[in-house]
Amino acid sequence: MRLTLFQADAEPGAPHRNLDRLKRAAAEAAGRSSDLLIGPEMGLTGYDIGAETVRTLAEPADGPMAARVAAIARRYGIAILYGYPERAVDGAVYNAAQLIGADGRPLLNQRKTHLYGDLDRRTFALGGDAFPTADVGGARVGVVICYDVEFPELVRRHALAGVDVLLVPTALMAPYEIVATAIVPARAFENGIFVAYANRCGTEGALRYCGLSSVAAPDGSVLARAGDGEALLTVDLDPALRRVGTHLADRRPDLYGAVSSAPGKGGS
Amino acid sequence: MRLTLFQADAEPGAPHRNLDRLKRAAAEAAGRSSDLLIGPEMGLTGYDIGAETVRTLAEPADGPMAARVAAIARRYGIAILYGYPERAVDGAVYNAAQLIGADGRPLLNQRKTHLYGDLDRRTFALGGDAFPTADVGGARVGVVICYDVEFPELVRRHALAGVDVLLVPTALMAPYEIVATAIVPARAFENGIFVAYANRCGTEGALRYCGLSSVAAPDGSVLARAGDGEALLTVDLDPALRRVGTHLADRRPDLYGAVSSAPGKGGS
Repeated sequence: MRLTLFQADAEPGAPHRNLDRLKRAAAEAAGRSSDLLIGPEMGLTGYDIGAETVRTLAEPADGPMAARVAAIARRYGIAILYGYPERAVDGAVYNAAQLIGADGRPLLNQRKTHLYGDLDRRTFALGGDAFPTADVGGARVGVVICYDVEFPELVRRHALAGVDVLLVPTALMAPYEIVATAIVPARAFENGIFVAYANRCGTEGALRYCGLSSVAAPDGSVLARAGDGEALLTVDLDPALRRVGTHLADRRPDLYGAVSSAPGKGGS
Repeated sequence: MRLTLFQADAEPGAPHRNLDRLKRAAAEAAGRSSDLLIGPEMGLTGYDIGAETVRTLAEPADGPMAARVAAIARRYGIAILYGYPERAVDGAVYNAAQLIGADGRPLLNQRKTHLYGDLDRRTFALGGDAFPTADVGGARVGVVICYDVEFPELVRRHALAGVDVLLVPTALMAPYEIVATAIVPARAFENGIFVAYANRCGTEGALRYCGLSSVAAPDGSVLARAGDGEALLTVDLDPALRRVGTHLADRRPDLYGAVSSAPGKGGS
């Protein structure tokens, strides 16, 4: 499986121009024979653009932005994972990412399940208990969004469900570079999976996105890592490597009850 | 709280000489006004020294090695965490670490709960569901041993139980440096706790221990990290910093059932 990370800036509140950028990236990634292109969190609209703007731009998973991404995917024959604000039938707005197949058909839609501070909470509803997976380029993929990856329990759930490559659209800002440099390889190593982490770059209001998009292998090694500017990072993955690790087999679920039974507030 | 990591080689099967080394380290650490000295996994006997030798040297938690460590702790007025093979009343041998207080009294004894490959399994019984904590220098401490720290669920359990500083005696060998460089800071960051990781150095049979003992802070920063030779690393910790993180409060235990209910074998 060959995937390309699209580390991108995004024009706030201008999905058409961000779709134009995505199209150029898809053309380039397809030229490199990639199976899959992965853009950042809320890459079509911008992220820290105000709750009202997000609500205005939000659309259903089969809305106009989805149709345009599907057309790009079909045209270049490449699967695309893109981040966008999803409006549900009940009107709730989710921080979501959708995976469209190379034939233009939707493969999965994932909502963010761990909301990050006021930035997320004033804008988005909390994603529920649904973690679909899909097959792309011979690998089973799942998706978590940004802050989600900082919760080892959630990544473990994907690994236990048989995910080979966890795709992570994100909008990581300074000074949290440690998520890119330590958490991403740790998640790969401790689960024996690949983790593909596609970040924003540039600035947005007071936020400075730190780039460092990367792909970590099941042995924890970093196969490629971007700097802090726009980048298209292409990496070949062998899903068979998923089996190298011993961690999943050596788990002790009998000792982990507190992880799923404790209330959401921890500490003493 | 001030703690000192004792990154040490160990003379295989020679507890008396290893206790002499521990005594010198305790004197030096106490001279630096440390509250606590932490030695590596199986630091009193050596680790990869053969199952028969381990069984011969194993002793109860209140055995002669414990008495000698207690005398060192009392003499220098410093708490000491040391790794040793523990013989239980039923004859089973555990890969254990014991914490002795500055007054020479035992504070906690921890058995390794995730056994690493044949190296552990041919020698040790599997530790059970017991994770005692203790107060040292104004901080609540817990202990996990080596491979244990690679399981995020177990470290989460300690954090949920209110541990401020997780103490990790280890015997990490090349080429697994990623555990020291990524897993240790990841555990600190994702739980908002301190992680103090005390490794072996030198060689033992075919194993080359890689050092890199370190202390990571609740924001994931590495406060100090050793090289690959013998080292005494002294660090001041402020337990109040434990509260900086948002991860424990933002957990979604309702989504984590698979972590504690799945069987010990994962993947598809």
